[in-house]
Amino acid sequence: MTVDVPKELPMVKLEYVVAELERVKAKKVLVQAPQGLKGVALQLSEELSRRGFDVMISGGPCWGGCDLALNEAAAVSADAIVHLGHTKFVKQSTIPTIYLECRYEHNVDVEQLVMKSVHLLRPAKKIGLGMTLQWLNLLERVKQTLENHGFSVLYGQHENGRLYPSQVIGCDYTTIKSVESKVEKFLIVGSFFHGLGLSMITDRCVVVADPETMHVEDMTQITRKVLMQRYAQICAFRNSRRVGVILCTKPGQKREGLAASIVSALRKAGKDAYVLVLNEVDERFLPDEVFDAYVNTACPRISIDDHAKFKKPILLPSELMVALNLSSWEELIYSYEYFRWCMRND
Amino acid sequence: MTVDVPKELPMVKLEYVVAELERVKAKKVLVQAPQGLKGVALQLSEELSRRGFDVMISGGPCWGGCDLALNEAAAVSADAIVHLGHTKFVKQSTIPTIYLECRYEHNVDVEQLVMKSVHLLRPAKKIGLGMTLQWLNLLERVKQTLENHGFSVLYGQHENGRLYPSQVIGCDYTTIKSVESKVEKFLIVGSFFHGLGLSMITDRCVVVADPETMHVEDMTQITRKVLMQRYAQICAFRNSRRVGVILCTKPGQKREGLAASIVSALRKAGKDAYVLVLNEVDERFLPDEVFDAYVNTACPRISIDDHAKFKKPILLPSELMVALNLSSWEELIYSYEYFRWCMRND
Repeated sequence: MTVDVPKELPMVKLEYVVAELERVKAKKVLVQAPQGLKGVALQLSEELSRRGFDVMISGGPCWGGCDLALNEAAAVSADAIVHLGHTKFVKQSTIPTIYLECRYEHNVDVEQLVMKSVHLLRPAKKIGLGMTLQWLNLLERVKQTLENHGFSVLYGQHENGRLYPSQVIGCDYTTIKSVESKVEKFLIVGSFFHGLGLSMITDRCVVVADPETMHVEDMTQITRKVLMQRYAQICAFRNSRRVGVILCTKPGQKREGLAASIVSALRKAGKDAYVLVLNEVDERFLPDEVFDAYVNTACPRISIDDHAKFKKPILLPSELMVALNLSSWEELIYSYEYFRWCMRND
Repeated sequence: MTVDVPKELPMVKLEYVVAELERVKAKKVLVQAPQGLKGVALQLSEELSRRGFDVMISGGPCWGGCDLALNEAAAVSADAIVHLGHTKFVKQSTIPTIYLECRYEHNVDVEQLVMKSVHLLRPAKKIGLGMTLQWLNLLERVKQTLENHGFSVLYGQHENGRLYPSQVIGCDYTTIKSVESKVEKFLIVGSFFHGLGLSMITDRCVVVADPETMHVEDMTQITRKVLMQRYAQICAFRNSRRVGVILCTKPGQKREGLAASIVSALRKAGKDAYVLVLNEVDERFLPDEVFDAYVNTACPRISIDDHAKFKKPILLPSELMVALNLSSWEELIYSYEYFRWCMRND
């Protein structure tokens, strides 16, 4: 029986991890990785075990840099967490955490990827370029190739330096939203997921080019459809009486103050509201028989991408403001405000 | 829009909860309940809020008294947990926990339920009687009715008093396993789930009678089928090379010492073994692409009842001993040993 585990660790700077673990005097280590990097996590665990560390692997989901396995690590008294595949998100972790970025090193046919994007980008000439972490090594090559095809390419810095220039994550597009006024279209090198995220908060056309599948797509139509679905949920929400306000315990998604303000706003609007504390927002366990609707203060992408799984409306805080007539739908769509509430931690 | 929330709280001793919360000086309270009692949890939350407590509701799954929402409670700095519907399981909780048992008080037609069971119990005359927590109020009536039909009825005490006389839970049947040698058949008043659990660890016929559905069933055939499936997993496990040993962080399911011994045993047997730390054993997130098989030190019922969801064999510690030829299948089946490993905490 053979299984798919990389023979080498090209994506991981092993000596850096070892040095960091030694620096924080860790002996017992929990390795955490998103689903697609579990093979790398296993290989890394073997390497670390060989070097004398006592290693365990996190077996739960891992949705982003916000989703640190602090509880698992604490439960087994791990001295440190090695978190693979995401940029540092949680500033202060109760357990020393090494965010270990992984970059795809294998060959990508950048020329072909850009060629496929070109007909979707034209007739625009000024392009905002965003990338996800694993493809950042391609940044200069993609930029250069676009320029060779006659485009001018822009991207910005992150306002607080949390992300690399041009880097986007599921809930944060500020590096390229900042150049919006200077570009006609955006190109995201990454997945459909990241293309949709940006497309929700900009009125510019977003094209996504995925180096893994070599698939290229204009996000305009799908975004309109998603926004219509969101608006339908906002309308349905208005009929709700009993609302569960979701408060997630993941270190980068815990917004207790926000949840409390939302409960107040809902009660002021004449609704019954309760805080629902949970770790995973799992549609199978939400008490749909007692709640008419939810407001989600956890990851905003749960409402956007997974809404079809839920039996009841599950609004974002910004959408709630529309439902309660405290702001307007027209102002919300294609605006920075859509995910803003969920980018702060309190 | 109407939702199904009880108008009163007949199952809950409200004044007891309030007194206990006052005793531990709790102001902020997390209410936790299994899926079927979420309506009661909501109603209780309202009552407690009215009395001045700051109340939140746990929105995650709740599988038993072993599954305390300590992480959720800690994340929101709750002073106490009110845990509905289960008998006390975790002896020492880091956060004051009030286990609030719930009993069904509505009318059950005990005579009819026993009548339906009688033809499955006969020709046996000596019956071991087990019950789940919510039906324990019926114990004397069921016993009396069985006796009226000519049966003699036995049940035992729990060895350490953790459960009520005759009470069974998903992983612990010692109150009635103790009378096995004196009875010909068992009757479980409760669910299919509890009937199957007992039937796995006794060679006596088990009949289950569910007061909620009034359904009555002889568990013999289904148990043989489940045991065959378990044996098939044991055989499949023998071909595995890389094994994940599941270590659950739930307070009543965390068996770190057991997981470590299993890793040693697996390595001694020439397999690669890794500890997988997680909170929910969720088939969607197990790294099936890197593991050939799992050993489950969490809730034993995950292997028994949910095995079809998993793509790879997921053995119990007792089954692993068979797979490694350290004990025999014939000795394991219908024995107390089947779940024993998972009844200890270390």
